[in-house]
Amino acid sequence: MSGNTFGNIFRVTTFGESHGPALGAVIDGVPAGLALERADIQKELDRRRPGQSALVTQRSENDAVEILSGVFEGRTTGTPLALLIRNQDQRSRDYGNLAELFRPGHADFAYFQKYGIRDYRGGGRSSGRETAARVAAGAVAKKMLAALGVRFCAFTAAVGKVAGSVCDPAFIENNPVRCADPAAADAMIREIAAAQAAHDSVGAVIECRIQGVPAGWGEPVFDKLDATLAQAMLSIGAVKGIEFGDGFAAAAARGSENNDAMTPAGFVTNHAGGVLGGIASGAEIVFRVAVKPTPSIARAQQTVDCRGKAQVCEIRGRHDPCLAPRMVPVVEAMAALVLADLALRQRARANWTTHPTGER
Amino acid sequence: MSGNTFGNIFRVTTFGESHGPALGAVIDGVPAGLALERADIQKELDRRRPGQSALVTQRSENDAVEILSGVFEGRTTGTPLALLIRNQDQRSRDYGNLAELFRPGHADFAYFQKYGIRDYRGGGRSSGRETAARVAAGAVAKKMLAALGVRFCAFTAAVGKVAGSVCDPAFIENNPVRCADPAAADAMIREIAAAQAAHDSVGAVIECRIQGVPAGWGEPVFDKLDATLAQAMLSIGAVKGIEFGDGFAAAAARGSENNDAMTPAGFVTNHAGGVLGGIASGAEIVFRVAVKPTPSIARAQQTVDCRGKAQVCEIRGRHDPCLAPRMVPVVEAMAALVLADLALRQRARANWTTHPTGER
Amino acid sequence: MSGNTFGNIFRVTTFGESHGPALGAVIDGVPAGLALERADIQKELDRRRPGQSALVTQRSENDAVEILSGVFEGRTTGTPLALLIRNQDQRSRDYGNLAELFRPGHADFAYFQKYGIRDYRGGGRSSGRETAARVAAGAVAKKMLAALGVRFCAFTAAVGKVAGSVCDPAFIENNPVRCADPAAADAMIREIAAAQAAHDSVGAVIECRIQGVPAGWGEPVFDKLDATLAQAMLSIGAVKGIEFGDGFAAAAARGSENNDAMTPAGFVTNHAGGVLGGIASGAEIVFRVAVKPTPSIARAQQTVDCRGKAQVCEIRGRHDPCLAPRMVPVVEAMAALVLADLALRQRARANWTTHPTGER
Amino acid sequence: MSGNTFGNIFRVTTFGESHGPALGAVIDGVPAGLALERADIQKELDRRRPGQSALVTQRSENDAVEILSGVFEGRTTGTPLALLIRNQDQRSRDYGNLAELFRPGHADFAYFQKYGIRDYRGGGRSSGRETAARVAAGAVAKKMLAALGVRFCAFTAAVGKVAGSVCDPAFIENNPVRCADPAAADAMIREIAAAQAAHDSVGAVIECRIQGVPAGWGEPVFDKLDATLAQAMLSIGAVKGIEFGDGFAAAAARGSENNDAMTPAGFVTNHAGGVLGGIASGAEIVFRVAVKPTPSIARAQQTVDCRGKAQVCEIRGRHDPCLAPRMVPVVEAMAALVLADLALRQRARANWTTHPTGER
Repeated sequence: MSGNTFGNIFRVTTFGESHGPALGAVIDGVPAGLALERADIQKELDRRRPGQSALVTQRSENDAVEILSGVFEGRTTGTPLALLIRNQDQRSRDYGNLAELFRPGHADFAYFQKYGIRDYRGGGRSSGRETAARVAAGAVAKKMLAALGVRFCAFTAAVGKVAGSVCDPAFIENNPVRCADPAAADAMIREIAAAQAAHDSVGAVIECRIQGVPAGWGEPVFDKLDATLAQAMLSIGAVKGIEFGDGFAAAAARGSENNDAMTPAGFVTNHAGGVLGGIASGAEIVFRVAVKPTPSIARAQQTVDCRGKAQVCEIRGRHDPCLAPRMVPVVEAMAALVLADLALRQRARANWTTHPTGER
Repeated sequence: MSGNTFGNIFRVTTFGESHGPALGAVIDGVPAGLALERADIQKELDRRRPGQSALVTQRSENDAVEILSGVFEGRTTGTPLALLIRNQDQRSRDYGNLAELFRPGHADFAYFQKYGIRDYRGGGRSSGRETAARVAAGAVAKKMLAALGVRFCAFTAAVGKVAGSVCDPAFIENNPVRCADPAAADAMIREIAAAQAAHDSVGAVIECRIQGVPAGWGEPVFDKLDATLAQAMLSIGAVKGIEFGDGFAAAAARGSENNDAMTPAGFVTNHAGGVLGGIASGAEIVFRVAVKPTPSIARAQQTVDCRGKAQVCEIRGRHDPCLAPRMVPVVEAMAALVLADLALRQRARANWTTHPTGER
Repeated sequence: MSGNTFGNIFRVTTFGESHGPALGAVIDGVPAGLALERADIQKELDRRRPGQSALVTQRSENDAVEILSGVFEGRTTGTPLALLIRNQDQRSRDYGNLAELFRPGHADFAYFQKYGIRDYRGGGRSSGRETAARVAAGAVAKKMLAALGVRFCAFTAAVGKVAGSVCDPAFIENNPVRCADPAAADAMIREIAAAQAAHDSVGAVIECRIQGVPAGWGEPVFDKLDATLAQAMLSIGAVKGIEFGDGFAAAAARGSENNDAMTPAGFVTNHAGGVLGGIASGAEIVFRVAVKPTPSIARAQQTVDCRGKAQVCEIRGRHDPCLAPRMVPVVEAMAALVLADLALRQRARANWTTHPTGER
Repeated sequence: MSGNTFGNIFRVTTFGESHGPALGAVIDGVPAGLALERADIQKELDRRRPGQSALVTQRSENDAVEILSGVFEGRTTGTPLALLIRNQDQRSRDYGNLAELFRPGHADFAYFQKYGIRDYRGGGRSSGRETAARVAAGAVAKKMLAALGVRFCAFTAAVGKVAGSVCDPAFIENNPVRCADPAAADAMIREIAAAQAAHDSVGAVIECRIQGVPAGWGEPVFDKLDATLAQAMLSIGAVKGIEFGDGFAAAAARGSENNDAMTPAGFVTNHAGGVLGGIASGAEIVFRVAVKPTPSIARAQQTVDCRGKAQVCEIRGRHDPCLAPRMVPVVEAMAALVLADLALRQRARANWTTHPTGER
């Protein structure tokens, strides 16, 4: 209701501000008996962590996660998992000069209008730091889905005007930009470096492919698989668009080109990106998200303060010149949250007439 | 949970199949005392109705709505509104030959995998006809928001490769394609006619602009204004993508280009499309959705039947060669459902410390 | 959110006023493939129907239900079931003199304070007539649970000061008061007749026993089985209390008396009424609800009108002198809604580690 | 959905096990700008704390709460409040001998049937210790409602066969049993001491009175004020029943006795306990809950182990011989959670037609 909870059965609530004592997530709805240890979660947090390369913010956070509840002797108990990440490097003094300014391209103004009060330190709740809690929760969803063979693969498909063209999953974690195309990674890195050198930032496209989703997941009408993924992705700060399969290109196509023919061996093509009528078709799920350039740039910008007076804003602090490299695990995490929930929703009702007890 | 309900406070549940007895919507959460009559709803349904021009399906439905509850002496009472639309022209025999086939590009296969049973007549619940119920509910949301000056304006921005470039709101309802650019409408109409003549269909882009949304609407983190609009739009069948403001173009831009500077007079530009950090900024909300070409085409297509055997599918029945003209009011309706709900969610908590009673 | 929806997965929304065009329910979350016909629902509505004996209101309603959606060729399709009951005998003129009065013991005053407007005809939405929609929905839940052997048995346990002492399930539908004790039925009937003759009404206790609920149903902490049943029962108009197992008597007992010892053959006693820690124990579920006397009585009563002026209220119209006989099927219906939902909630997550697909 | 979340707008999720690292609550939906400090919460936790008198468990927990998020410079920001309470005195060795036994009257068996795994240390999630998180959250709700003049007063109305008869609010916190009747407190204390001396426990009745609730709060049909309070109270472990106003006594009364007449000065009586048609009438809200005797008693009891074999169970550990004294603040906390949520729900929609913006 107030926006900090996601999912229906696998339900995640996150909390925490960029410069408060801690961030965290509570997950209610994790099935009992799942093997889970801290390392399962920490490894995903490490992919999102600041300071992992020269391309990203140098804020020093080890993002160590603590499991406060819901696990007993290495297995989930069916009760809520609470995951806690303490903040460490809160250089709030960087934000002292921003206490009264609304940074262009940031949530500052909108939050102030909404609440009449705001925690200005690093954006408070609107900070990208909030996504650490999502990644922690997503790690649990991934672990749960792995048993079914659901695999997530997100990567940076374009940085500014440089786009990759092939997808080599093994390459993604081997380059700091998380590009999947070995031929394009260097150009992407240079694009980011050029923006940074110009005290500027640059946008990007992230692509996500999901394999192993059984046909039938997703709910009709309002909670379609693609609708729910769209909500999940647009809920990540700085994402300005999403498209599935051929996406906007399909808007220029004819039906005879866009329909995916079926054969006994499966779909001949995948223009649909794995979703038909909002329900998984069994084909690979493919979508792309548009990521805007980081709004925090070290140039003088025209803005107003909280009394409505014109001001010039110069943002210090430590920021990612391109958000995509660290956002790749966030995209996977959100996709995992969507699918874990839809898996349980499908499971609740499927095969009732043949196995009403749900026992086997 | 099972996908047929949308919204939190202003909460809509739709029901009904393409060829069943009736479609409808129940809205729980309408404020009491709102003047509302059947005509408020009927006028929006008439914009979506089949048979309104030569460009759309000729199925004969007058889509007359009946208000079953929640209105007393011309005003809402605060109790649920039930809206009923009886189906009339159910030429189910058109679908007899499709009872065992999965139509390419349709939900048929995915629904069968999901439920193990399906109402094959006209797509059953997955039919676009379901959107009549959304338009009816959206009309109530629009009426409610009109008091606040919130105005919706959606139009066909492109058909196939023909795009409009200006927006003249007054022109939209004066051409059968609901184009907003007087110079582009004829070319769009020809694009649709050409597809139809080729026993084919064509995709489109719909743009939606919303004025009068106060800064502060939208909830942080998961229920951002843009995230919720994205879910709403992708929940419309055939929508394959959405972008806000500069959208995918922002992914190729630099921060210095993409940030909207602020002055005491307001935002200098609107690259963000009216949303900052997921919260309305007070600027016009602008988004575009990609609509795939109608999957029902009168050409022979390769498919399988429900026993997995290869078949050739030829779709008769009456279909829109381009979905956009009749989808324009659906886009507005879904946007209105989003905003009515976010308005009430904002209202629930705002100004508590100054006016905790909610009385004035 | 606005109170007209019940359940999480098996989710029912009701609508309709006592003297409006119709009442109804939409159920989202019914599993697909369930055999269901109109008669399954009608038979339960007939148990609740007005005019079934001399002990109840003589309002003439046949309460014929129409299934508008969600069933295809005799089986549920997994999409929402909409159930419609048209009102027929709306003697609204009986209420003309009450348009401005608040009837003592009724919702009139509270609704007016809440909404600032009210449909005064027969109580509008607050009428007991609303429970017809619950009974219709409950019939679907019962059908669904029957496959698991879950059986509901509610009966009138006391009328005024006359209490039954044994439970003969076969007797319940054979006497107009729905008493389960053949030795007490006549005295209960006389108690009602005496109240009626005195232009008065009388309270009652309804007991409900549920067999076949597997151990493990119910959710911990806030959605305990007994907590959810308590909400369900108190949501029925005129219910003023509920107790499980020994209930209020347990408050006067010692632990050594109240604990139910366990043996390999099961529980030795059932002081707990089938619920431990909020979760079904596998023993019979037993609870009792207190039903207040019908507030509509034909005596002059002291009240105020909507301008706050003192008035005398004399209620004409047709009312049940004791609510219990027709409320028995409502209690069963609400219990069935609770259990259908908890069954699906349990099924969603159970056995994940051994059968993650939910297939067998 | 999985039972650990309560409320709609003011929404609380609790987590934590009796002998895990920590307990806590996340509250999403707190209005922004509310003055709140740690002491507001701590003072309520201190009322529930173990070891506060000779009548309660001597487990040593200071239950110090930490606010992790949602407060900035002494005021709530509108973002989620996370409240953390570390466990300290986890004498889990007391439970080693219970690892395989199901304690009579406890949730052990039902949880094992539900999840197939259980944290046996002190009952894990089913422990009464979980209510610390509720009391913490309830303190925030109380603070929020205090601005409106809503006041909560719960007390021990009976212990075993000893009942109080008057209510002196000032006396409640001055006696260890939290009795409101100065003449009955000593007898209650002796009743508890006698049970304890007999290695037994004793049940109780808690009464709660709430003043200052405006007429109109509560939602119709399923989310009635009394229905929601009933869910809230039955969600507290060991509560076996609830009644409002005259409650079960009303079941034996006539309508002419039970109806509360109205005059321009207000209700003449309050048999209804402040609720009419499920909506607050403006009168004092009055309800009583039945609390069963503590199931943990130091006598040998007949039970089974997790392999179904007969066993004798002797419970060591530190337990309250009567749950009521420490449950009084839990009852108030749950009532506050109900009312905070219903207040916001009412606020969301009220006065729309006169003040649609919600601004004043």
